[in-house]
Amino acid sequence: MNNIYLDHASSMPIDSRVLNYAKQFLTNSGNPSSLYEFGQEAKNALESSRKKIAEFINAESEKSIIFTASATESNNLAIRGVANRNIKDGKTIISSAIEHISVINPMKDLQKNGWNYVTIPVDNYGIINLDILEKKLTKDTIVTSIMYANNEIGTIEPIKKISEIVHIKGKYLHVDATAAAGRLPIDVQADGIDLLTISSNDLYGPRGAAALYIKPGIKIQSIMPGGGQEKGLRSGTENVYAVVGMGEAAKIAKKELKTESKRLIKIRDKLISEITKIDNAFLTGHPTNRLPHHASFRFSHIEGESILLNMDMYGIQIATGSACSSKTLEPSHVLISIGLKHEEAHGSMVMTLGHSNKIEQVPRIIKATKETVERLRQLSPLVKKR
Amino acid sequence: MNNIYLDHASSMPIDSRVLNYAKQFLTNSGNPSSLYEFGQEAKNALESSRKKIAEFINAESEKSIIFTASATESNNLAIRGVANRNIKDGKTIISSAIEHISVINPMKDLQKNGWNYVTIPVDNYGIINLDILEKKLTKDTIVTSIMYANNEIGTIEPIKKISEIVHIKGKYLHVDATAAAGRLPIDVQADGIDLLTISSNDLYGPRGAAALYIKPGIKIQSIMPGGGQEKGLRSGTENVYAVVGMGEAAKIAKKELKTESKRLIKIRDKLISEITKIDNAFLTGHPTNRLPHHASFRFSHIEGESILLNMDMYGIQIATGSACSSKTLEPSHVLISIGLKHEEAHGSMVMTLGHSNKIEQVPRIIKATKETVERLRQLSPLVKKR
Repeated sequence: MNNIYLDHASSMPIDSRVLNYAKQFLTNSGNPSSLYEFGQEAKNALESSRKKIAEFINAESEKSIIFTASATESNNLAIRGVANRNIKDGKTIISSAIEHISVINPMKDLQKNGWNYVTIPVDNYGIINLDILEKKLTKDTIVTSIMYANNEIGTIEPIKKISEIVHIKGKYLHVDATAAAGRLPIDVQADGIDLLTISSNDLYGPRGAAALYIKPGIKIQSIMPGGGQEKGLRSGTENVYAVVGMGEAAKIAKKELKTESKRLIKIRDKLISEITKIDNAFLTGHPTNRLPHHASFRFSHIEGESILLNMDMYGIQIATGSACSSKTLEPSHVLISIGLKHEEAHGSMVMTLGHSNKIEQVPRIIKATKETVERLRQLSPLVKKR
Repeated sequence: MNNIYLDHASSMPIDSRVLNYAKQFLTNSGNPSSLYEFGQEAKNALESSRKKIAEFINAESEKSIIFTASATESNNLAIRGVANRNIKDGKTIISSAIEHISVINPMKDLQKNGWNYVTIPVDNYGIINLDILEKKLTKDTIVTSIMYANNEIGTIEPIKKISEIVHIKGKYLHVDATAAAGRLPIDVQADGIDLLTISSNDLYGPRGAAALYIKPGIKIQSIMPGGGQEKGLRSGTENVYAVVGMGEAAKIAKKELKTESKRLIKIRDKLISEITKIDNAFLTGHPTNRLPHHASFRFSHIEGESILLNMDMYGIQIATGSACSSKTLEPSHVLISIGLKHEEAHGSMVMTLGHSNKIEQVPRIIKATKETVERLRQLSPLVKKR
C-alpha cells in the first residue's frame, strides 16, 4: 500500500531537482569566508541563492535578504532584533492571536523584559480584526507581526490592508510567510511588508535554511553574536548546501506556483466537499480565502491524536493542531482563538497537500477518514456521555 | 594538479561514510514532532544520534545533549543562556583572551547589558595564565569559558586544572571544543566540564548541526523561543539529516581518533620542522602541546592574505588568522594576545590537516611555501623599508 502524505505543513520532501542542483555542496563545501578560489565558489553560490530569494518575493535587491537556519530563527531575529534595536522609539509589540508559536514566544520573551505585548483577536474564520488592530496601534508600536496565512486553518490574512493600517501609526510590519510562500505569490513591495520570514523546507528545499527579508533602512540587531556573517546579523559558518538548495527551490516555486496551486485547489475542494458531508464534521478556517493546499476540519466527540494514529494505519499521514505543539496536551491556541470550545478544538484534523498528491487519491482518503471517524466515535466516551 | 587542502579548521569535507549513513534523511525527512510512524522514525534517528554524541564525550547520558545549528549557536546558548538564567547569583563572566569570536562576542553582548566581563591573558604559547584566572574568579562568576584548544595556533589548554580552579569559587565552566573534538579524546566527566560545544562539520559531519553538552542540574534558558524542541532550549524543526550525520561522524571519530591523530602528528611535525627552517619563519602556538592536525606559522615582512592567494595558485589551501574574521583588516586577536606586534601578526599562515593529507604531500607543500615566501618578500614594501 502506497503512503498518501498529507502533512506538508509539518515537513516537505525535498524536490529531486533541488537536491540534484545543491548536492555538490554536500561533499564539496568550502567556507564562504575563505579567500581562496574554493571558498569563493561557495560564496558565489550563496550570493546567487540570495538573488533567487530576492526575486521570489520581489525584494528591492539581494542585499535585503539574510539567511538563517530556520523560520523560528528568522521570526526571532525579526521580532527581537528589531524591537531591541529600536527600543528608544517605544516598547509596544503586537501580533494576531493565531500566530505561530515561534512568533508568539519571542513576543512573550520581550514581554517578560518589560515590553507591552498586545494580541489582536480574529473572527471565526481566523481573519484578524482590523478595527481592533487600528485601535491598538500606537506611535510606540515597534513591531507588528501578522502571518501571511495560517498553518493550522489555512486562512489568508489581508496583508496589504494590514500594512496600510500598521503604517498609519506603528513602525514595522513583520510577516511570517512560512505557510504561504510557495503557495501564494508574495510581493513585499506591493504588499508593503517591512520584514518577511520564509523557510526553505516549505518550498521543497532542504531543512536547515530560512531567510529574513529586511526592507532597506530598517534598524535591526543580531540575536546571535559571533563571527559576523550575514552583515553581522547572523553569525556562524553558512550551511552552503541548504542555502543553495533554498534558492533553487524558490526559483522552481516561483515558476510553477500558478499551475501547481490550481491543481492543488481542485484536490483541496474535493476533500472539503466530501469530508464536510460526514456527520458532525466541520471545516475550520475560511471556506474560500484559504491556502491552495490546505484542508482542515474538526470532528465532534473524537480526539485528534487518535484520528492521526488511525489514519496512519491506512497509510495516510495527517496532522492535528500544529506539529510543533504536538508534545503538549493543551488545545491549539489557533482553534481556541477562532471561537472553538476546548472539546471542539481537540478533534481537529489538518490535511496539507503537495507535489505527490493526486486527485485520484481522494476516494481512498475519504474512505479512510469516514471509517476512522466512525470507529473512534463507537469507542468514544465523549459520544456515550451525550 | 591535485589540490592539497590544508584548511580543515575552516571547513571539513563530509566523510563519505557519514553521507552514506545520513543521506536517507535528505529525501525522507519526517518531522520528529509528528506522531505518525514516519515522523517517529525521524525522532528515533535523532535520539540515536544524541546517544552517539553522549558516548563521544562521555556525558552522563544522552539527556545532557542539546542539538543546535552551529557551534556559534551552541556557544551563544551556553554563555547567554546560562548567564541570564542565573543572573540572581552574580553578574560576572570570564573568558580567555584567545577565545573564538563566537565566545567573545556573546560575552561582549552581556557586557553591554551590564555584566562584568573579565578576560584572562595567555603566555607566548597561548596557554592561559592560571594564577590570574584564580585571582579574577569570584563567587559571582557565573560562566567561565575557556576553549579546549585554539583554532588559530593549535595550543591545548590545561582544561582539567582550569576546571579545578574555576570550581573553587566560580559556578560553571563552558568549554568550546570545536577545534579539539575529533582530534583529542574528550571526557566531560573526567575533565570536570559543565558545558561543552562541539560542531558536526569539525568531525567530518554535515554543516548545520552542532551540540551543547549541559551537565545535569545546570539552569539554562533558551536563546531561541518558539515551538519548544530540544527540551524547550532550542526551538525550530530539527535538521534531521545534519543531526543524524553528526552522530555517525562522532562515532567514527571516536573509533579512529588514536590512529588518525598519530598519523597526522607525523605530517604536522614534518611540516613544522621544515617550514621553521625558512628565514624569519616562526612557529606560532605551543611546540608540543598542540592539536595533532595543526601547524601554524608567521613570516616576517609579508602579509597573510598574499600568502593565502599565492599558495592557492599552487593548488594548496591554507588559512591566515581565523576564517571568521577574514573580512576585517584587524590583526587576529589571538596573535596579538600571544605577544606579537601588529605587523608580525599580519604575516600568519595556518595549516590544518585532515583525512586527505598524506606525508608524501609534504615536499610539495614545503616547496610552495618557500617559493611563496621568497616571491612575496621580493615584492614587499615592508622588506625594502628595513
